[in-house]
Amino acid sequence: MILSIAPEVHVIDITHGISPQDILRAAIVLAQSVQFVPLAAHLAVVDPGVGSSRLPVIIETRDGSSLVGPDNGLLTLAAEKLGGAVTCYTIANPDLALPRPSRTFQGRDVFAPAAAHVARGVALETFGPQLAYESLVSLTLPKARRHGEHLHGTVLLADRFGNLQLNLTPAQLAEVGLSVGSLLEVQLEGRRTLVRYGETFISVPEGEPVLTEDSHGRLALAVNRGSAADRLGAAVGSSVIMGPPGSAH
Amino acid sequence: MILSIAPEVHVIDITHGISPQDILRAAIVLAQSVQFVPLAAHLAVVDPGVGSSRLPVIIETRDGSSLVGPDNGLLTLAAEKLGGAVTCYTIANPDLALPRPSRTFQGRDVFAPAAAHVARGVALETFGPQLAYESLVSLTLPKARRHGEHLHGTVLLADRFGNLQLNLTPAQLAEVGLSVGSLLEVQLEGRRTLVRYGETFISVPEGEPVLTEDSHGRLALAVNRGSAADRLGAAVGSSVIMGPPGSAH
Amino acid sequence: MILSIAPEVHVIDITHGISPQDILRAAIVLAQSVQFVPLAAHLAVVDPGVGSSRLPVIIETRDGSSLVGPDNGLLTLAAEKLGGAVTCYTIANPDLALPRPSRTFQGRDVFAPAAAHVARGVALETFGPQLAYESLVSLTLPKARRHGEHLHGTVLLADRFGNLQLNLTPAQLAEVGLSVGSLLEVQLEGRRTLVRYGETFISVPEGEPVLTEDSHGRLALAVNRGSAADRLGAAVGSSVIMGPPGSAH
Repeated sequence: MILSIAPEVHVIDITHGISPQDILRAAIVLAQSVQFVPLAAHLAVVDPGVGSSRLPVIIETRDGSSLVGPDNGLLTLAAEKLGGAVTCYTIANPDLALPRPSRTFQGRDVFAPAAAHVARGVALETFGPQLAYESLVSLTLPKARRHGEHLHGTVLLADRFGNLQLNLTPAQLAEVGLSVGSLLEVQLEGRRTLVRYGETFISVPEGEPVLTEDSHGRLALAVNRGSAADRLGAAVGSSVIMGPPGSAH
Repeated sequence: MILSIAPEVHVIDITHGISPQDILRAAIVLAQSVQFVPLAAHLAVVDPGVGSSRLPVIIETRDGSSLVGPDNGLLTLAAEKLGGAVTCYTIANPDLALPRPSRTFQGRDVFAPAAAHVARGVALETFGPQLAYESLVSLTLPKARRHGEHLHGTVLLADRFGNLQLNLTPAQLAEVGLSVGSLLEVQLEGRRTLVRYGETFISVPEGEPVLTEDSHGRLALAVNRGSAADRLGAAVGSSVIMGPPGSAH
Repeated sequence: MILSIAPEVHVIDITHGISPQDILRAAIVLAQSVQFVPLAAHLAVVDPGVGSSRLPVIIETRDGSSLVGPDNGLLTLAAEKLGGAVTCYTIANPDLALPRPSRTFQGRDVFAPAAAHVARGVALETFGPQLAYESLVSLTLPKARRHGEHLHGTVLLADRFGNLQLNLTPAQLAEVGLSVGSLLEVQLEGRRTLVRYGETFISVPEGEPVLTEDSHGRLALAVNRGSAADRLGAAVGSSVIMGPPGSAH
């Protein structure tokens, strides 16, 4: 659809592997990807509310990129990563969509055509009325909290390796006195496990769990040559408590 | 393989997600895709009969596209969508295939090279003898029937969202007096379920089944933010009967 | 990442379907793919030892291609297929990597940038010190053995069709007097099965097992319109013994 409208555009397919309806995962993956992609019209569609009154929108970001997709929280984390929003428009001009768009697949009929036109340089005000960026739906990632010596966090993402990305950072671990090399007690799904805080997966013996800084600056639980999701019985949304070994919880 | 022969060609990968040997699904997905793709040499390979006497063919269609693949029913639904066949050729010229093609992977050795040469503009008669389009294997989609107030149909496709595409259209529902907003009784895999005929998934509360027109003009059973395949226990090939609630079956 | 550095480069995505940490499978798939791909900087990353002392390397091959990836055995089978190595360099120059590369995702931060720079024509000696190709980790595929009338081999690969690629060739079968058309006794996972040695899948009735030469010149066990992995209960690493029917084992 994009190439029918803009044959000269270079289409980069980041992923088709987001589970149906998983807006949160898509929003995080998008935010973690856009900074490594050339200046682009970024198209993202995870759209369980297709056909409802949720708006189709285009966000222009401070770096000169744009984000095209449904106003359901999918785009705002990425907009922040790209320097924040400059302007925001609804997609309302029928001349820039497929004639007679379906009610159930606006990814094909509305969003892809819009992204193609944006990539060709069509002025954003041509798409529809301007919109206050602040009025967009925005996702709130669960916040980590500190309780004395402990950090209380959440599993944000599990990848296909079974690595568990947490809403915690190395800086937060440092605040409770833990640094690379430390042994931690991790409480997850009712079990306590001693986990080494290492630089990378192979900082621990094969099959052992490890806490590392992942490639997006967040802490992640992993298992050297294994799956932390399987080993620790955890998944997206699982609560995690970590602190020095032997401390009361 | 295509880019080795035709480096200047733009390769668009529609899907590698068709289940092994599922010619019917591939034929439907191909027919539903080609109309949204730029003018192209369309290459499709689902080829359980590879190495048999089934012919490798090229169909030239009325819109100026061509379809390259095995003569096993894969291509003809798409040919109809592209305006019908103009000419048809077998692929027999060894100079336009990989030298010493394997017996088990003609997708790589015969069909991809042929599509690359077609895309470069090689005249179709160069590939081999002309063939009567009518002699090709053609798939017959199961036909829906009307029995009084009821429609008897079949599940054609299940997608990764669990949406069930039926061989029924909104026009056929209208014939039995049902229109958007109507409540229907749907009989599927031995169970009767009341289903709203809605404009889109969110026409019903979350978790509820809905009948909608899908993005290809067919009726589909879906569940708002869920999977109709799971909820209704149905799959490709399941028979479906639908009509007004409470009518005898 | 590649296109950020080298926007003019044509990226071909061979597969993202290798299971986590499966270096052997990736090495075989890479070696079987590179010969059908245009002259390229081939990037491969299956990297369970990321962050360890395993070196990031570039191998220049005799055909003028290069292979970029970790020194863990992933690249050497492909290097042999491309005519063997000419030179080999470590990737050490921080100017040719992402600033502050992560410890856990060097595919993005080190290998993809290196491949992009190679594709742009950066001289290989710019990346880091030269390395003896012989010092690289190299995988050894399990060797087949002949015992009298029998061949003892191993399942190298199972593909998504359930075809089982063996470390055996038609030439080895010929040595024990078996040729296309022969019936064989195949011993696999404790079961003996009579299998026809056919030219292709459809050389046997639907649902029946068949031994064929696959598209890479190796023997493979398959089932006509079915899965040999399921039917024969075998997987990668399974031992296989085959010979004339009724001979003692």
